[in-house]
This record gives sequence, C-alpha cells and structure tokens, in this order.
Amino acid sequence: MDIKLEHVAPGDIERRSFEIIEREAGPRLPQGIERSVVQRVIHTTADFDYAENLVFSREAVERGIAALRSGASIVTDTQMAKAGVNKQSLARCGGEVFCFMSDPDIREAAGRAGTTRASACMDKAAGLCRPLIFAIGNAPTALVRLCELIGEGKVRPELVIGVPVGFVNVVQSKELLLSLPVPQIVARGRKGGSNVAAAICNALLYQARERP
Amino acid sequence: MDIKLEHVAPGDIERRSFEIIEREAGPRLPQGIERSVVQRVIHTTADFDYAENLVFSREAVERGIAALRSGASIVTDTQMAKAGVNKQSLARCGGEVFCFMSDPDIREAAGRAGTTRASACMDKAAGLCRPLIFAIGNAPTALVRLCELIGEGKVRPELVIGVPVGFVNVVQSKELLLSLPVPQIVARGRKGGSNVAAAICNALLYQARERP
Repeated sequence: MDIKLEHVAPGDIERRSFEIIEREAGPRLPQGIERSVVQRVIHTTADFDYAENLVFSREAVERGIAALRSGASIVTDTQMAKAGVNKQSLARCGGEVFCFMSDPDIREAAGRAGTTRASACMDKAAGLCRPLIFAIGNAPTALVRLCELIGEGKVRPELVIGVPVGFVNVVQSKELLLSLPVPQIVARGRKGGSNVAAAICNALLYQARERP
Repeated sequence: MDIKLEHVAPGDIERRSFEIIEREAGPRLPQGIERSVVQRVIHTTADFDYAENLVFSREAVERGIAALRSGASIVTDTQMAKAGVNKQSLARCGGEVFCFMSDPDIREAAGRAGTTRASACMDKAAGLCRPLIFAIGNAPTALVRLCELIGEGKVRPELVIGVPVGFVNVVQSKELLLSLPVPQIVARGRKGGSNVAAAICNALLYQARERP
C-alpha cells in the first residue's frame, strides 16, 4: 500500500486546514466576523453540517469578543470543554474558566432538587458576581436551567454559547434559548459537544487578541 | 412559541438516549460487542455517520476490555480527551490516563526534532514500561509517529484508538494504522475528535465493569 503524507510544517497545519475548509465549503460559510467561528468549529469536527447549523444573534460575536476583552469569564458544563478552552489566551484577557460539575456541593444540590448536576451548576454560576459567557456543550438540562435563570433575571450573560449534544431535550433546549433576547451562538439540531463549545470560545479569544 | 420538554428523570437520560439511537439507527449498527462502542460514540456526537465510519480489527473490543481489566493505562494526545475519560472507572481497574502535551520537555523535544508536540508525546509514551491503550483523538502527527514506533518495535500497544480529526494527513494517518497488525478501533475518514476518543475509552471501561 502506498500512503502519501502531505508535507506540512508543524506551524502551518492549522493554516493549511483552514485553506481546505475554505476551498471545500467557502460558499456555504457566512460572511463577516461569524465566518472564523464556523471555520474553527468545522476544523474541530470535520463536520460541514456546522456551516448551516450554527446561528448567531445580531452582533453575538462582537459582543463575545468585547466581553472577553473586558475580562469576562467562561462557565462551561463539562471538564472537557474547560480543558479545551485556551486558558493562556483567556488569562491574558483577564478571565478564567469555571466548571462546577465535580464540586461536592453540586452533587448534593442536584440530589436535593431532583435535577442533574449540570443544572445545579447553572444555579451556582448565577451566584458569580462578574461578567460571564456561558458555553454549554453537553447537557440540555444545563441550558434549560440557564434559560430559566435568565428569564427570572437572576443571571445576565454577556453571551450564551448553546451547543449541547444528544437526543433528549437537546433540540428543545436550543429552541428555548433562541426564544430569549440574549446574545447567543447556537448549534441548531442535535449536534454540538464540548469540543464545539471550546472551539467557539477559542475562535472568540483568538479574535479578541488579533483584532484592533 | 410552545416548546415541549420530554420529562425524563436525570438517571434515565442516558438510557433514553440509547433507546432513540437504537430506534433510529439500529439496523445500521454492528452486531456483537462492537455495538455498544458505536452507540456511545453516536450518543457523544449525535452523528450517525459513525455507524459506518468506525471499524474494528478482529476482537479489538475484547482485547481493549481485557487490557483495562488487567490494569492497562491510557495515553491520549489532548487534555480534552484526558478530561473526558472516566478516571474513576479507570482507577478501579488499576489504570490511569496520561497526556504529555503540556509537559515542558515535550515542547523542547518537538522543537529539536522539528515535529509537533503531539508527535513528541508518542516518543515519551513509548518509554512507559506498562501495558498501554493509545487513544488519539486530535493529531494525525501523533498517530503517524505512533505507527512508526510500532513498526520499529519500540511500543506494543494493547489497543490503538485511532480517531484524529481534520484535514491534513488525517485520512492518511488512519490508513497507515489500518495497514498495521495491531488491535485497533478507527474512525475512517476525516471525522473523529477528543470527544470520540474519550467516548470509546469509556464504552470499553463500562463493559470492563459490567461484563462477567
């Protein structure tokens, strides 16, 4: 068998990947500042469905970038998404990333309320007195609870990245978010994931660093 | 707008998800022990393409489960995959999970060799004197280097989970792995990811726990 590797220097792999995405999906990608977010999600997943799935509220990307530049922190619903966020870039902007899923008080709170740990995490996050971007990459229960808290005025996110994945209430949780007047980036349908949540955070972070 | 949430108790969400996957994709899923692995990857990604993409060498799942039960450890190429592996289940079997990507010596080694950090991680892992499962969810350069090390007889993995994602040498790295006589689970094509790598590890871990 003859397997031909393409010779690409380590520092050029990402640029080359983005070139291929542009070549194969360019006409399907949004214009403007949203483009780099969609590109990075496709780069992370190799799934061109995100060219159509990802929807942005008006100026969501601009608002996310501005929030990060002002030192906003990120709340995620999985340790995987937390691991995937570029914490060096985030720290340079003055923010940090929180995931409460493994906290002992969360297990107790979820048990008491008869809900999921992911849902209980949103209540805990609502108690953080600082500007927040929520990046929900796994649990629709987290996104549903976050929407409730927004509706009750208990939390006012700078941006919600609503990309939970799966089969039970995932589509509904995203439609619920879409019905709210909050800055948002949503992967419509069943697809999403911790990797997608982290990729969107990083796309915003890299723009926050690069753009004047 | 009327958004109807399905009422599912927190402890039943996963079971309900697997029911939906069975209902919608049952005939496309492999029979036998591989089925639970494919189900869990679809559960993680909501991407039914994995019903066809995932290929298994003969008894790969059985060998992975046996290795985990004997205390094998897992080496991954991303902190995200490491974060996603169920470390409690793994520790109960006697294993642990390694990712060397953030190690200071890896950056130096990669710089000296003119390669990627992911590739340098494989050399470091080859020095671990213990049974290992490699779960490559991101970097084709890691998988190519691992294949070289296997070819040179410098490492003999119990199992290779080859699911890097992307556009540069990803397909080739997987075809290279498929050409080697090593136990393997591969996501053919461009798709894969840290989430997929972790999901496959966890599917094996849960089987290791459950099966007699």
